[in-house]
Parts: sequence; structure tokens; C-alpha cells
Amino acid sequence: MEAARLDALLVVHLPNIRYLTGFSGSNALLLLEPGRAWLYTDGRYREQARLEVREAKVEIPPRGDLWKAAGRRARRHKQVGLEADHVTIAQRARWLEVWGGHEKGLRPLRGEIEALRMVKEPDEIAAIRRAVELASGGFAKLTAKLRPGMEETAAAGWLEYQLRQAGADGLAFDTILAGGAHGAQVHAHPGSAPLPQRGFVVVDYGVQLGGYCSDMTRTVHLGEPGRKARAVYATVLEAQMAAIAAVKPGAASAAVDRAARRVIQKAGWGAYFPHSTGHGVGLEIHEAPRLGATSKERLAAGQVITIEPGIYIPGWGGVRIEDVVVVTERGAEVLTPTPKQLLRL
Amino acid sequence: MEAARLDALLVVHLPNIRYLTGFSGSNALLLLEPGRAWLYTDGRYREQARLEVREAKVEIPPRGDLWKAAGRRARRHKQVGLEADHVTIAQRARWLEVWGGHEKGLRPLRGEIEALRMVKEPDEIAAIRRAVELASGGFAKLTAKLRPGMEETAAAGWLEYQLRQAGADGLAFDTILAGGAHGAQVHAHPGSAPLPQRGFVVVDYGVQLGGYCSDMTRTVHLGEPGRKARAVYATVLEAQMAAIAAVKPGAASAAVDRAARRVIQKAGWGAYFPHSTGHGVGLEIHEAPRLGATSKERLAAGQVITIEPGIYIPGWGGVRIEDVVVVTERGAEVLTPTPKQLLRL
Repeated sequence: MEAARLDALLVVHLPNIRYLTGFSGSNALLLLEPGRAWLYTDGRYREQARLEVREAKVEIPPRGDLWKAAGRRARRHKQVGLEADHVTIAQRARWLEVWGGHEKGLRPLRGEIEALRMVKEPDEIAAIRRAVELASGGFAKLTAKLRPGMEETAAAGWLEYQLRQAGADGLAFDTILAGGAHGAQVHAHPGSAPLPQRGFVVVDYGVQLGGYCSDMTRTVHLGEPGRKARAVYATVLEAQMAAIAAVKPGAASAAVDRAARRVIQKAGWGAYFPHSTGHGVGLEIHEAPRLGATSKERLAAGQVITIEPGIYIPGWGGVRIEDVVVVTERGAEVLTPTPKQLLRL
Repeated sequence: MEAARLDALLVVHLPNIRYLTGFSGSNALLLLEPGRAWLYTDGRYREQARLEVREAKVEIPPRGDLWKAAGRRARRHKQVGLEADHVTIAQRARWLEVWGGHEKGLRPLRGEIEALRMVKEPDEIAAIRRAVELASGGFAKLTAKLRPGMEETAAAGWLEYQLRQAGADGLAFDTILAGGAHGAQVHAHPGSAPLPQRGFVVVDYGVQLGGYCSDMTRTVHLGEPGRKARAVYATVLEAQMAAIAAVKPGAASAAVDRAARRVIQKAGWGAYFPHSTGHGVGLEIHEAPRLGATSKERLAAGQVITIEPGIYIPGWGGVRIEDVVVVTERGAEVLTPTPKQLLRL
């Protein structure tokens, strides 16, 4: 705050509020002053805020008007920071109204709190590791059950049930489970279609545990894989391992993406890898850094990222392989323990 | 658009984009001109957009720069509408840059598209009904299994598994399942705590089916309920039914809230009902209208809302009962078929 010359900082993005205070409710504003903080929430969260919030005073304003309460508290400040990537046009207008200051006193912040979150503390890495290991355990339970003809939603449901039984607090995102040609949709939702007698099944899922997310993808083959299936799978696996090998402190995010993309391009499937190679993971399932062709960041020790190249051929199917990886002083540590060789079911 | 004197309208909010075009992917911009529309997304969604999008031309811009492509298309327009509740400060700045127009040509919209969404078409009500009925079916499966000593996460997992088996596309929100004193947290996440030998269990959950959400809460009692438990439950049930009886076209949302609140206040628990009585439900789990003490709207036929009063006593537990209700010409139709009498397990 000193560097940015701020008298105060209004935080609206809930994962940032959770990071700074521990509060996990769905409605809150956080006002930071040097050395002091106020968390505003509504009556539904009185009990939860009492249990969770560290290092901020909790206020439950009358009639649930968090903005008015925070604005009044900030009246005497001239320069107030706002998260430009999260505050909406309407919220900005509302803030000006309740705060009463001048537009010129608003300081847009771009990812400063997210930059703090990007490098994880050891206890955060431990939390992610627990989430990743719990999720990986579910994959073995899924493959014991997954068979041709099973409906995608039933298979996804079985997997999610195993994750809950193992103690997951919830899912990190909507599970992707898509068989055959459906797997060519990168973000396919499980449907009522039966899994094919022969073909790939892409399974991409994550859990939340203790506030932190896991994220993994494995692709299995139902029936005997043909030559093309083997070649596509081998290419994705080689690309994924090449990207992991490129991970180290100081490496450009774009270079990690390039390492994977080059393998897929050389095999002739470059046009079928339409997404970036990975992203940060933590309190949110997608956070900084991004690992794409146009990324500008460099990796740093303590970052936790996914590595997930894929090949998607319309009308045929898709293959993606994804691990969670910690950037360490010496390179990369893969947290995901699930094997990656081609599994035939 | 004519009424608002817009040459064009940029839509960023994904549920609004889905409502207008059918596209359900996680990254898109929609540019509307009178009689024409362009949907911008990235390469991951090429296949999905081809299958889903109606009445808009799909473009996949190079390097995934949706903003640049949409801005270039809108260059010749002077007045462009932006959703003030969804466009961030950073997106507004980016739009000015790629569009090249003057700040004064930006027209903030406040809920205009959401107002269209608020009154549902018959096929939307049918979709919500299917989601509600699927979810209700899961509740019977849960109560067949729910027992004292079961872990909350295991119970939630069993329920979610049943929902998936029944064909749910996913969950509408993180399931709330909280036993004993934990139920006093209105939005409690299932934890590893075992369910109590004696006490209430609040279960609040929903599914997504065909893009639409369901939302229901039931509270069951483990072991023999005492006098206080019976009284709290009877009060919440009476409040919930009073609110449903107040639902009709033209009724003030605040009056529906008041109908529930008055019952709880008269019973002496007014301080323990810290949230509003309900909210709209549709493509999003929370949408317009809101039914709270300070709501200004009036209900209209075709709206679909929840009615969900509750009483939460710190250190003791909570009771909430929630149905999904359609506002009809003659009053209200309750979609949720699950019985509401006190269930002892």
C-alpha cells in the first residue's frame, strides 16, 4: 500500500478476501488501512465470520448495506485502491457515492493481490498437495468402474461420490467427462450419451479441500486403441513431459507452453491444440500465472501450476493429460501421483 | 436497444450470453446490433459453439483476443451499451482502447437483460421443473441413508451421487449439509464432523439440468425432537407457507418477505432469521427478483422464485425449508414435490 501511495484499499474479490482474512463466505467487502482491516458481511455469516476471520474486525451493517458501511469508514481517506479486474462499473459508481471522495482519488490495482497469492507459502503447498492426492485417489476408483456403455453423467457421478467419500469439501469446477467424439470438445459437460465401445474418455476434474483446489486430467481408452489413438496419446504425453522438463525458476511461461506445443506441432497436430499449456492453481482453480504462447511472466519458486496439453480432433475425440506441478528451486515437482501411461479399460 | 438509443450492445455476462444465443462455454463476448449478432470465443469452443449457437455469427479471433475483434467490429458505432453490473473497470478501459470511441458514448445498462430473463418462457419453466423434480428425487434417496454418526461430507457425497445417477448435468451450487450446531451457519459447507445422535440436519442443494437450476432445502431431525425443535420447525413451516400464500402477480416482493418474517417474529425468533425470504432462479442460481425486506419489485406471472425462510440459533442449530415456486396468473404453483412435514430419522 505504501508503494502504491494508498491511504486505503477496498477488496471485493472473494478469493482475495479469503487469502487476506480467512473468510470463506459468499458476501463480503474488506477495507484495508495500514495496520488495520475491516471485514463487512451480512447476518447469514455472523457465526462463520466469528470462527474464520483473522486480523480484521468484523462488522455486520444494518440492512445488509456493506458498501455504505465501508464507504463511511473510508471517508477520511483521499487515495483508495480498487481491484480493476473485479470491481464493476456499477460498484465503482456506488463506491464514489458512499465514500464521497473524488474520482481522481481512485487507484486501480491490476493483480497486486493476485501477485502475492501466486507464490505459495509452504502451508498452502501442503494444502494443495492434500487436495491433489485426494483427487488422484478417486481416479483409481473411477477406472475400476468405467466401462463402455456407461452414461457419462453416471460415470462422473460415481467419481464425484468417491471424492466426497474421501473427504472433499466440494468440487473445484464442473467435472469434464467425455467419451469418443464428445472428447473433442475441450470443456465438454458430461451428458446422457453412453461411453463408446471403443475410443478415448477424457476425465478432467478437481476438488476443493481446506479452501484449495486440485486439477487433473487423465484420458483412458475403452477397447483396443488403434494406431492413430496410440500416436495421439504418445504425442500428448511427450508434450506434457517436455513442458514439465521446461519448468524452473526464471523460465518464461511462454517457453513452457512452447515446449509442449513444439512436440504437438512436429507430430502434425498443431492445429488441434487450441488452448494454453497451463495455469496457476490455489484458492481459485484458475489463477496467475497463465502458461500460454503470449504469456509474459517468468516462473518463480513456490508457484503452483498445471501442465495440460491436449489434442482434439473433431468427430474423432480428444486426449489431454494434466498434472499439478510446484516450481521448486531446482525445477519442478509433480504433485499428481496418478500414472500417465495409456490405460486400456 | 432502440429505447436505450444504442447502436450496439456488448454483452460480457455468460448467463446473459447463454440466454441470448444458447452458448454455454466459459469464455465469450457477444456484440449485438439491431438485427445482427456476433459471438466471439476461443479455439477451445469451436466445436461447442458450432453445435450450440443460434442467431449469432461465431468468430474465433487470432491469439484469443476477443476484445480486439469485438472492438474492431463496433468501430463505426457511436453509442455502445455495457452491462454495468458485470463489466469491470479494467474491461471498460480495454473496451475504450479496442473500440476507439469516446467515453461519453458508453451507455451503462442496469439489469435490462436480466429483466428479460426474469419472466420465463413456458419451455424455461418446463426445464426448471425437470431440474426441481430430479433434485427432489434425490432427497428420498438421501433420507433412506442419512443416519446419526455419518460424516457430513459422506452424506453430501451420497446425495450428489444420486443426483448424477438420475442424470443431473452438475450441481447448481456447493451443497449445504450441516448437522446440529453447524446448521446455525446459514451457508455451512459439509465438514468431516459426524452427524449428531440428536438434532437437526439442514440440507440445501440444487442441480443443473439443460442449463437451468433447481434449489431446495429440507431440514430433518435425527432422534426424537424435543419441544423447542418442534416449535422452531413448526414456525419455519408456517412462515414458509404464509409466504407462498402471499405470492401472486402484482404482489410486492417485500410483502412476501414480510409474510414469512411476521410469523417468525411473532414466535419470538425474529433475530434468528438473518436473510431474505427468496430469490429468482433460472440459468443462474441467484437471479432477479430478490424477495427481501428492502426489495422494491412487484411479482409478475412467469417469474420463478424460491421461498426459503429459516431460523438459526447459534450453538443449537438451524431449520430452513425451501421450495421453488412459479408465479402464475392465479397465485403460485409450488414445483418442489418433496413433503414438508417434520421428518424424524
